[in-house]
Amino acid sequence: MITLGGPRPEESRAMTQTAERSGGPRPGRFVGQSVRRREDAALLTGRATWTDNIALPAALHMALVRSPLAHARIRGIGAEAARALPGVVAVLTGEDLADDFAIGLPCGWPVTEDIKIPEHLPLARGEVNHVGEAVAVVVATDAATARDALELVEVDYDELPAVVDVEAALQEGAPLVHEQLGTNHCYTWPLAVGDVDAAFARADVVVEGRYLQQRVLASPMEPRAVVVDPDPVGGGFTVYTSTQVPHFVRDLLAMICGVSDSKIRVVAPDVGGGFGSKLNIYAEEALALALARRLGRPVKWTETRSEHHVATTHGRGQVQRIAVAATREGRILGMRVNLLADMGAYLQLLTPGIAVFGAFTYCGLYDFGAYSFECQGVFTNLTPTDAYRGAGRSEAAYAHERIMDDLARELGMDPAEVRRRNLHPPFHEPRTAPSGVMYDSGDYDACMSKALELVGYAELRAEQRRRREAGEQVQIGIGIGNFTESGGLSPSKVAAGVRLQSGGWEAATVRMTTSGKVEVVTGTSPHGQGHETAWAQITADALGVHPDDVEVRHSDTAIAPFGRDTYGSRSLPVGGVAVHLAAGKVADKARRIAAHLLEASEDDLDFTGGRFSVAGTSGPAVTIQEVALAASLAADLPEGMEPNLTADHHFDPPNFTWPFGTHICVAEVDTETGRTRIVRYVAVDDCGPLVNPAIVEGQLHGGIAQGIAQALYEQARYDAAGNPTTATLADYTVPAASDLPAFELDQTITPSPTNPMGVKGIGESGAIGSSPAVVNAVIDAVAHLGVTHLDMPVTPQQVWRALSVAGHTARTA
Amino acid sequence: MITLGGPRPEESRAMTQTAERSGGPRPGRFVGQSVRRREDAALLTGRATWTDNIALPAALHMALVRSPLAHARIRGIGAEAARALPGVVAVLTGEDLADDFAIGLPCGWPVTEDIKIPEHLPLARGEVNHVGEAVAVVVATDAATARDALELVEVDYDELPAVVDVEAALQEGAPLVHEQLGTNHCYTWPLAVGDVDAAFARADVVVEGRYLQQRVLASPMEPRAVVVDPDPVGGGFTVYTSTQVPHFVRDLLAMICGVSDSKIRVVAPDVGGGFGSKLNIYAEEALALALARRLGRPVKWTETRSEHHVATTHGRGQVQRIAVAATREGRILGMRVNLLADMGAYLQLLTPGIAVFGAFTYCGLYDFGAYSFECQGVFTNLTPTDAYRGAGRSEAAYAHERIMDDLARELGMDPAEVRRRNLHPPFHEPRTAPSGVMYDSGDYDACMSKALELVGYAELRAEQRRRREAGEQVQIGIGIGNFTESGGLSPSKVAAGVRLQSGGWEAATVRMTTSGKVEVVTGTSPHGQGHETAWAQITADALGVHPDDVEVRHSDTAIAPFGRDTYGSRSLPVGGVAVHLAAGKVADKARRIAAHLLEASEDDLDFTGGRFSVAGTSGPAVTIQEVALAASLAADLPEGMEPNLTADHHFDPPNFTWPFGTHICVAEVDTETGRTRIVRYVAVDDCGPLVNPAIVEGQLHGGIAQGIAQALYEQARYDAAGNPTTATLADYTVPAASDLPAFELDQTITPSPTNPMGVKGIGESGAIGSSPAVVNAVIDAVAHLGVTHLDMPVTPQQVWRALSVAGHTARTA
Repeated sequence: MITLGGPRPEESRAMTQTAERSGGPRPGRFVGQSVRRREDAALLTGRATWTDNIALPAALHMALVRSPLAHARIRGIGAEAARALPGVVAVLTGEDLADDFAIGLPCGWPVTEDIKIPEHLPLARGEVNHVGEAVAVVVATDAATARDALELVEVDYDELPAVVDVEAALQEGAPLVHEQLGTNHCYTWPLAVGDVDAAFARADVVVEGRYLQQRVLASPMEPRAVVVDPDPVGGGFTVYTSTQVPHFVRDLLAMICGVSDSKIRVVAPDVGGGFGSKLNIYAEEALALALARRLGRPVKWTETRSEHHVATTHGRGQVQRIAVAATREGRILGMRVNLLADMGAYLQLLTPGIAVFGAFTYCGLYDFGAYSFECQGVFTNLTPTDAYRGAGRSEAAYAHERIMDDLARELGMDPAEVRRRNLHPPFHEPRTAPSGVMYDSGDYDACMSKALELVGYAELRAEQRRRREAGEQVQIGIGIGNFTESGGLSPSKVAAGVRLQSGGWEAATVRMTTSGKVEVVTGTSPHGQGHETAWAQITADALGVHPDDVEVRHSDTAIAPFGRDTYGSRSLPVGGVAVHLAAGKVADKARRIAAHLLEASEDDLDFTGGRFSVAGTSGPAVTIQEVALAASLAADLPEGMEPNLTADHHFDPPNFTWPFGTHICVAEVDTETGRTRIVRYVAVDDCGPLVNPAIVEGQLHGGIAQGIAQALYEQARYDAAGNPTTATLADYTVPAASDLPAFELDQTITPSPTNPMGVKGIGESGAIGSSPAVVNAVIDAVAHLGVTHLDMPVTPQQVWRALSVAGHTARTA
Repeated sequence: MITLGGPRPEESRAMTQTAERSGGPRPGRFVGQSVRRREDAALLTGRATWTDNIALPAALHMALVRSPLAHARIRGIGAEAARALPGVVAVLTGEDLADDFAIGLPCGWPVTEDIKIPEHLPLARGEVNHVGEAVAVVVATDAATARDALELVEVDYDELPAVVDVEAALQEGAPLVHEQLGTNHCYTWPLAVGDVDAAFARADVVVEGRYLQQRVLASPMEPRAVVVDPDPVGGGFTVYTSTQVPHFVRDLLAMICGVSDSKIRVVAPDVGGGFGSKLNIYAEEALALALARRLGRPVKWTETRSEHHVATTHGRGQVQRIAVAATREGRILGMRVNLLADMGAYLQLLTPGIAVFGAFTYCGLYDFGAYSFECQGVFTNLTPTDAYRGAGRSEAAYAHERIMDDLARELGMDPAEVRRRNLHPPFHEPRTAPSGVMYDSGDYDACMSKALELVGYAELRAEQRRRREAGEQVQIGIGIGNFTESGGLSPSKVAAGVRLQSGGWEAATVRMTTSGKVEVVTGTSPHGQGHETAWAQITADALGVHPDDVEVRHSDTAIAPFGRDTYGSRSLPVGGVAVHLAAGKVADKARRIAAHLLEASEDDLDFTGGRFSVAGTSGPAVTIQEVALAASLAADLPEGMEPNLTADHHFDPPNFTWPFGTHICVAEVDTETGRTRIVRYVAVDDCGPLVNPAIVEGQLHGGIAQGIAQALYEQARYDAAGNPTTATLADYTVPAASDLPAFELDQTITPSPTNPMGVKGIGESGAIGSSPAVVNAVIDAVAHLGVTHLDMPVTPQQVWRALSVAGHTARTA
């Protein structure tokens, strides 16, 4: 009898041990170690500084009057009663602020030339297009008064018909979200590689699937918040905002508010999670700046939890159609993907690009010859969608792993075996994927084999057969999620058609002060990822110092003027590598100075433990701290050398990295109640060498939890009129730790050739491999009862109903 | 009959015209032009941000209880009544703050190994050593309450005998400023080059002088002020302070308060003049930080004008003895200099070094073989002395030009002729001066000849003879001030013995944003010098953009982490050159990208007006703004090139620069009243090529005014007990514009070989050449009546008395 319980203690330690053994291209004293996160002490003891903790004296507080209707014309706004409330400083409408903004909230990823982009003002003028859209702003001397005043603002609406479903939205006669566009169609973005029609024509079997990617909410621990403080010097503004992207916020606020980008300093203080929802510029940020400028006082706003449900972008929101053509032996010949992507009512920063970005990973780990993809963006009267952990690639992995199980069932083959027959062979130099992009490196069979072995696949299949044959009430299913993600978001390197106007580089500066301390400035903007710890490890190894002597500065555009911020699993493979390369430049300069001071050749120097000495001698040595002081005093430097020990590096990777993995979920489904219990969860990931295994584990834990949440629990639901029915956390069921299994983690390591550290990124992998593994497991548990399709979230109710429809009669309790 | 009036209109334009013609090593479209100062609009219309304008809500206000006695033991401090005053938050003594400071206020220029450095606490403990020393601090919710509370603090003193004169201080049995030192002697610093005794032994004539350099006050328009704001994020502090040296303040506050330097951000807002007095770290800055740390609220302090007179460092304060040995033909053979330098009661940052720094310029423009110098630092019960415009070099020029006139009188020669016989011949590569330092370049005869010609020297001498012979009541005198200053303070390059622990480099970063704007970050810290204008000119020429598109950021250690700040005429020849070199790196990178984009060879590209094109063709071109965008998008860059158009340069000059000049003052002295009127003032300066002639003129106007003020008006006076008798601006007579003549300025240009721009600096020249020219003119007017010695300030009373003593009987009115 096999164990279905969680990992034994010795298994949970395996990951760290493996990582410690693994090394990588640059093994070091600290890189590869589970150095304790320096960020955690403050976070865990309540001493973190969230934006809402920033209490600037005399700050004004902002609150937003939001539309209660999904679609309506604004006939008038009565603000007199609100203005009369003591403590209210101003009540302003979109009309009042007509001259405060140079442009509306911009879309930064117009995926096609003829994409339709509706104007998106920080405050609505004339019409509202989703519940939660802001129509007026109240400013008061305290937050409670501002919120009280909201109820005194009278908005007179003419309700209009709403559309909330992407398929309905494209039907003839559907209500139009934006009448002036004449259509709810936003764009069509196609990709075709190889002769797909021919592949399908010569196939032995074709399987097709229609899967729903429900809308989900980021639900970070910290909702959004912003404080704009007019600078006491120079006429600029300091913007404290809970964002993943302070540099984007600087550049975009400058454009929206008509301020020179050099007059805006954006600081992201401690940020309590983003998950893609804080990779944006929001109306409230622009409003706070406009009001601080108008009123000459700090202006603050903090999102309520219910505002988060309607005013912060949603994730996912797609209808996926996928078809695979294969031989009878299970070899895939071609794949067709057709998406309808729900834009919501407006295009936020990356809205149109999210689904398109997935185009390149629907082929997953599998090698075949013909691939086509088409995505249509569709407007609805709902909150805009945008990035959400795993964006595009999570949806892709879900679809391709669902269809692989469908194909296996069609062929009567084992799902692992079908997958194995289609894997790319191991490769260590870039290899072209069916979608036309170049994967960097991979040994997919090794990874999947390790996962199958770790979970005890054969024994599980035997146990499954036993239970089926016994007709037990609780059946088990085994679901596999093979996936690749693309890390190091680098749009400029993507093939034609992805028109994001931004380079994929990241900047780092490393400098030593005269006191021998090291300062690292990074353009990444951590919000839970532990960059302060990991970048210090990387720098410490390069400079032979202790990580405690390395201060990492970030998330402040005055201090780090160049940066592309944190999202898309880019921070380590782009930003961390930039730190590594900048630190390497500093070490090289230190070596030249040390050679000069020691009157030796650079090549003859040993550099160990932060000390330069002449190799093979016990003669004089000089520490790197002494070199830093000498570099500042500049009294005795090599001819022509500039003073000071500082260097920057702007690293522009030649390609995405392509982390990958195999996640396996073992689920028990109670066929009487429809309830699913995950009993095992094995994840073998390959993100190249590990800098800090504990951080990698943490990223995987969180990501897998998030994928399980989408698979089983979460959905932002609306009624037919566009009213949210999950407007609070009581309705929107975020799982708790007790709802989740223990995770069994392991990894393989195939270094990426795209960067000198070989690292690939791990921020999203957990959220990509998990939802298909879980849903496949549930279906696998009940497929023999006739249930071969379920949609996320796979609730007990849905499973029970599907079993009923399939003819499985539950015993009465 | 010659004109003794001010310059004719055509003369006052001469300087700008000459400068526009002059060019220099890097003539450009904007460099060399009198571009209007961008700083002035805000300054002239009351929109500048002085530190005192920074009104952080909920800020606490600090006021200091200061000693009314020059020397006393503190027996006790009664603070109860002050603490009881409503609005008072805290009253703290030195004892209360014993644990708040890791060290006292440091001396950063210990000129000898055995220098005596008394402990200098931010608040006195046990003993006070000068009037104005802080003994307790009051913190209140508003500034008026804080000041009211001062009168309620009762300090019980035991008065001790005080010493206020450096010569008296060295006498046996003099009261000791610091009893524990056992002496008032601080240090002795000697220098000797050549065989001075032999030179004096073989001389035909020896002349000796004893000159007094009175104490003067900086009297900036804006007194000192500081606001310390605890950062809302990260546990650090933002320090707004009216300083010349934000980087030094950061590093020194970190040491004094025991805070990591990376936790202190120093911002110098608009600073209303420094003149050396804000090149320091002061007790109030340390106290404000300590109190902000204790109380968790912003703490603010603004100096009153009367506090400025006792609590801000004084300038000068020396007794100079100088002797020159010469041949009968007027050739100098040797020079001896002996100084007593008044330290005051404590050593501030640079106190001991100021007089020592002058050691290298007592030989002025003159070439001779033997030189000795000795300076003794002496403690007195007065406010500490420190840097003051021209520091060290102004005193030197005063002494050597006084003694040149004494020598001329002794020899019966014309003062110009004596000088001419001793000038170095023209040189364009470094040349050793009698003091052992290397001068960079100079054509001293050309400069002096131009000044003599411009003033009409021969005609003036004729007029002087006429008036003498006629026995007119109003006599005229002609005074010459030849001088060299050392610009680009670079202590690491000075010969042995100057032990200032700092490199002489300056840092600059130049970057272009994607919007095509240019940001310059400079480590210099302007406080009136116009760096924003001048650095924009330099950058604009290098990058082919307009200066209006260049933003210059400075005086904020978060934004400009590397910097050595502004003093000692260093900003242009070190910091401006760093900007020039960094901009050159950016232009070079832009050229490489442009060549790549245009598919041309770099060498074939023209770069004109910000456009790169293939030379000799009318083919495609690319602007540098387009190059900047391409560098950010990074989609098409040369192989291996890092993205973004940014570069920094840390420029470490190989030597000081040595600006020089000849100033000539023509003064009328009313022999009946002793009143002096300056009727002509001609200055020919050589600071290398001019970047902005209007700014050069402004620097000269201010500097000459300051030198005239020392010569004729200003002195910080004390009674024998150490009580200041010039404690307000009513007693301390700062001259007004109406007290000053029109200045006739011109220049010669000998580029410095120490930097690629050839620039030398001009910040202090005016304050160096003027006081000897003026005093020499006054003496020259009355020497024939027997008055050959006067001391600064040359008041009418002093002149009248000296004439009386000499036997000149004034006619009664």
